[in-house]
Amino acid sequence: MTTELAVRYTAARTLETGPVTTAPPGPGEVEIAPAFVGICGTDLHIYHGSMDARVQPPAVLGHEMSGRITRVGPEVTQWHAGQEVTVMPLRWDGDCPACVAGHQHICHRLNFIGIDSPGAMQQRWTVPASTLVRLPAALPLDRAALVEPTAVAVHDVGRAAVRAGERVVVIGGGPIGVLIGLVARSRGADVRLAELSDHRRAVAGQLGLATWNPATDDIAGLAEEWTGGAGAEVSFEVSGAAGGVDAAVDVLGVRGRLCLVAIHPQPRPVNLHRFFWRELTLVGARLYDRADFERAVQLVADGTVPADLLISKVVPLAEAASAFDALETGGDVMKVLIDCAREGAGS
Amino acid sequence: MTTELAVRYTAARTLETGPVTTAPPGPGEVEIAPAFVGICGTDLHIYHGSMDARVQPPAVLGHEMSGRITRVGPEVTQWHAGQEVTVMPLRWDGDCPACVAGHQHICHRLNFIGIDSPGAMQQRWTVPASTLVRLPAALPLDRAALVEPTAVAVHDVGRAAVRAGERVVVIGGGPIGVLIGLVARSRGADVRLAELSDHRRAVAGQLGLATWNPATDDIAGLAEEWTGGAGAEVSFEVSGAAGGVDAAVDVLGVRGRLCLVAIHPQPRPVNLHRFFWRELTLVGARLYDRADFERAVQLVADGTVPADLLISKVVPLAEAASAFDALETGGDVMKVLIDCAREGAGS
Repeated sequence: MTTELAVRYTAARTLETGPVTTAPPGPGEVEIAPAFVGICGTDLHIYHGSMDARVQPPAVLGHEMSGRITRVGPEVTQWHAGQEVTVMPLRWDGDCPACVAGHQHICHRLNFIGIDSPGAMQQRWTVPASTLVRLPAALPLDRAALVEPTAVAVHDVGRAAVRAGERVVVIGGGPIGVLIGLVARSRGADVRLAELSDHRRAVAGQLGLATWNPATDDIAGLAEEWTGGAGAEVSFEVSGAAGGVDAAVDVLGVRGRLCLVAIHPQPRPVNLHRFFWRELTLVGARLYDRADFERAVQLVADGTVPADLLISKVVPLAEAASAFDALETGGDVMKVLIDCAREGAGS
Repeated sequence: MTTELAVRYTAARTLETGPVTTAPPGPGEVEIAPAFVGICGTDLHIYHGSMDARVQPPAVLGHEMSGRITRVGPEVTQWHAGQEVTVMPLRWDGDCPACVAGHQHICHRLNFIGIDSPGAMQQRWTVPASTLVRLPAALPLDRAALVEPTAVAVHDVGRAAVRAGERVVVIGGGPIGVLIGLVARSRGADVRLAELSDHRRAVAGQLGLATWNPATDDIAGLAEEWTGGAGAEVSFEVSGAAGGVDAAVDVLGVRGRLCLVAIHPQPRPVNLHRFFWRELTLVGARLYDRADFERAVQLVADGTVPADLLISKVVPLAEAASAFDALETGGDVMKVLIDCAREGAGS
């Protein structure tokens, strides 16, 4: 009997790798051997200790993942060991007003797996079979770990109702911003991406996305010039910064739609007069539903989202802490994956 | 030859009544004898001197009106003297990006008649024939002066896409807030109106609108209780206050729509996290289009909007200044009209 390992968040800025006791999956559950797990901005917030009110240490993080089924529990008939899957990490109660209205992904009592219950940064992970999403056999598992953030982007672009021919400005070019740019482009939109990091602008450029640098460019002026004075039809606020909100408002033309993707924990000053004057719309977007997730699998599998170009680094399980530190310093990285099959020695 | 009079804004807090020289209407123009002119919040802002950058004194204000055609200019074939009309006080350039996109009412170079060019607070007023809207013969002209603010409400309710059975909270119960409540109710919505003024809540109550008092009631708590924990489907921010923005956000349930009606000259702190968390939508609404205006005529004419109950006071032309002062002090008034046919002596 081998000992399976898990990475645990035990206190602010502390991750510990240690053995995990695995119980057989219960009724309706499936056990997975996670292959690759991406580190998300929310994971970083937890690591900083900013979410200790919600996340009780010790906690296993991770919700962007790919893996293979190892065992299925009783009453699970549609899945079997060996299948390659990803997980849509949401559990809803089914009877709150949001669920009753058909918006289960924003359930009033949503359990987000990897935040509110144990996540994928371990060698064995048990989840409800209902959360599984099948991966195509030809899709490499490292790329498949990008399905979850791609589903976020699909949802965001859908909430903004981006149409072919529209001009779209994405404020913030981390993984989600770049994925939004790619998904919007796949719907026929013309995209500009504003991002401070030289490295991230370079990655976006390799993906064929035109970029602006908010440190040196007048974003509103560039948008005005680009659109012949009309302003953009759509913007996405993905930066989380107060200045990003301003820019996302300023670039829009009459009846423009601002899709709010980033988390702003504190209230932000918003130019409401511009919303009135130009009849703008602000649309909040959170997570995804199953249709978004399945569309994301297609986009990653068919190369519309070239996930391999977004993966900056892959580290073994035991080096998760160093990967979090690298991301925290805002180094020259886009997406960092943890390889759960490798227990030590860097890539 | 009688001398026609006009009320002119000559400096902050100063209105002067004096003679006006009338020229015959030019090609495509129509001369009207205004009957009743309502005083709007924007007129008050101008009166305070807050809009001197846009309004050059001396200026004739007034854009909520009813009247009779006195003369028509050359090339005007569809109108004749004696017809009762109101005016949709918008002139657009027709070739800016907003106009090209079909949103003429938010033209980049909109000329709002009564702000950017002379308004209706005079005994003879010349406007383009294209701005005229026919009034039904049975509609008293004092009530018809409420058509313009009713068109605002029709537009706002349309922007929020209010549907039958939805629960709607209106924050701010001045004339526009009350009219929004009435129009939303006419579409089958269940309405609550939050307003600080006892008098205005009483008027709303006479119109059958249930009211809340933000000074003593916990608006968010009442909305939660009212909707069984779900939150309202729609809110309207009509107060112009920072606290009004907060309340309009707090009352909404998942996927709720906040229609922003009030003018907020300065940026307001907005709880963007709530927009993300509940996938809320904020929709800016400004002015109206012709369909809104024609619908407003119907609603006032058929009594769906009982305009007479909203008219607090009618003053003669020469007493316009005292009416502005009364409104400025936030006295117990809803809508105040100026009777342009009467030159002096109060009602």
